[in-house]
Amino acid sequence: MNLQEIYKGLQNDLQLIEEELEQTVDSEVDQLQASSLHLLKAGGKRIRPVFVLLSGHFGKYDVEKLRKVAVALELIHMATLVHDDVIDNADLRRGRQTVRAQWDNRVAMYTGDYILAQALQVITQLKEPMVHQILAKAMKEMCIGEIEQIRDLYNQNQSLKRYLQRIKRKTAFLIAISCQLGALVSGASLDIVQKCYLYGYYVGMAFQMTDDVLDLVGEEKSLGKPAGSDLRQGNVTLPVIYALCHEEPANRKVIECYLQSKGESNNFEEVLELIRKSGGIDFTIGLSQRYLKKALQVLEKLPASHASQSLQFITEFIVRRSY
Amino acid sequence: MNLQEIYKGLQNDLQLIEEELEQTVDSEVDQLQASSLHLLKAGGKRIRPVFVLLSGHFGKYDVEKLRKVAVALELIHMATLVHDDVIDNADLRRGRQTVRAQWDNRVAMYTGDYILAQALQVITQLKEPMVHQILAKAMKEMCIGEIEQIRDLYNQNQSLKRYLQRIKRKTAFLIAISCQLGALVSGASLDIVQKCYLYGYYVGMAFQMTDDVLDLVGEEKSLGKPAGSDLRQGNVTLPVIYALCHEEPANRKVIECYLQSKGESNNFEEVLELIRKSGGIDFTIGLSQRYLKKALQVLEKLPASHASQSLQFITEFIVRRSY
Repeated sequence: MNLQEIYKGLQNDLQLIEEELEQTVDSEVDQLQASSLHLLKAGGKRIRPVFVLLSGHFGKYDVEKLRKVAVALELIHMATLVHDDVIDNADLRRGRQTVRAQWDNRVAMYTGDYILAQALQVITQLKEPMVHQILAKAMKEMCIGEIEQIRDLYNQNQSLKRYLQRIKRKTAFLIAISCQLGALVSGASLDIVQKCYLYGYYVGMAFQMTDDVLDLVGEEKSLGKPAGSDLRQGNVTLPVIYALCHEEPANRKVIECYLQSKGESNNFEEVLELIRKSGGIDFTIGLSQRYLKKALQVLEKLPASHASQSLQFITEFIVRRSY
Repeated sequence: MNLQEIYKGLQNDLQLIEEELEQTVDSEVDQLQASSLHLLKAGGKRIRPVFVLLSGHFGKYDVEKLRKVAVALELIHMATLVHDDVIDNADLRRGRQTVRAQWDNRVAMYTGDYILAQALQVITQLKEPMVHQILAKAMKEMCIGEIEQIRDLYNQNQSLKRYLQRIKRKTAFLIAISCQLGALVSGASLDIVQKCYLYGYYVGMAFQMTDDVLDLVGEEKSLGKPAGSDLRQGNVTLPVIYALCHEEPANRKVIECYLQSKGESNNFEEVLELIRKSGGIDFTIGLSQRYLKKALQVLEKLPASHASQSLQFITEFIVRRSY
């Protein structure tokens, strides 16, 4: 089994989701149409829809319900990205200009608002109250996560615990509920729904850690943005936290001064190199592997099926990916 | 009956709502707590909660359900205001600095996101799917309304129809669903629910027209912002549209040039005076009275009660208000 095969098996349903995404962001207002499509066409791995569809196999697979969940979650993810880019002052994402760079912050703000409202219109077509409660809670946690990230910008005194809490809110929650809601709307048992959530949570945590590593060591071409973008924006990720704790005092001082200058000092490349050599990359990869192992352990307790095999493969792929 | 009496009759339930609003925006993140409370303490007339509570009397009044609706709608209204202020570059609202003026646009953006997420957490405690569908649709329309307002900034070629559509989306929808949802969650008949919606829609249209008039003729002290703020921000309201159609060519030219300069020309006071004298104020007041009359006609078809009397009084008050 490889990733292409998994995507191929889901091809028809993913195609339906893609079409519904396009229809949903369709608007009579030219500006909205342009900025929403810009965002949609930037692509992305659509991993949330993939998780929704695969988790749907643990119950009675109903593509009509699953696609509502998948479309809503992908739209919420998109809305978050476009607002995040405002907060991070980001110009590039996936190799394309961000909405705020192509237009401006105001357009980005209301494009995000509009996409979010559309997501709610899609999901409210489902009647299960729990779906809406789970979604609302996740949205709130995601907001807090984003705000925590701003609060912690350039902050050199961050604990591992604080980092984990932040990425849980920022990333893991939405992946966790992708799995949870996929199983839930398919009528899987509460035990299975809960396990799907837990699986998604572990995978989501590992996914974000891998993302944070790739940001530091990846190639600009495959990242779609310059290496070290997180650090440039003041986002102190786990490899940096590790370096701040474990580097020798002189090197630590260099990183601290960079953060204190809020990125204004001219030695970014030096700082990046220090972090790369600090052992923080290996530490973060190691931790993400521990999360993936936990994800696999949860998966083993779920009924064996083609879907669980696919999830297993994706889990193993996440730590090996380079984009 | 007067306005104080109506508020007094609702006092206990409004107090419950106020407390829940405060609890809801409570956050461990200092910044969020500060900006949300800043917004909450700016006050406002809480007319959406008042409409929710009064409409609840057309069914089986259940304060537990009604307060969820009222809190959610007031939070959505607040979230909209804080994002609107970013879009309008507004510094003052209700006599206080806006969130974006006191902190910055980014804080305003995520404060709005957070308050909206909280609103969804509150409303998803109700199980009726229709509640969520109605709310999601209104949120989408409100987004489009805001974007239409941006698109139409400083635009001198606007029709009455376009203005009406914009204020419907921007204001009337949320007031309409305040009445609709109040009746709906109280188990009123579909016919009554529909009439409540219609009543709220007419009142909401009239309310926004009165707001647009007050912005031009009100006192800075009671407005809480300088007179003519809408026009300064390029928001072309009905009195301005009227003046552009009915003024003699020389005066029309002055207004057109002001709009073409995007407010950069130094004759704002002259333009304001022209609009005040154009007959646009009276025309707008006249139109708002027609909407209020329609609202009263709908009200007459609803079962007579203390609540419908209160709604009647509020309806009549709206056109007489000066703040």
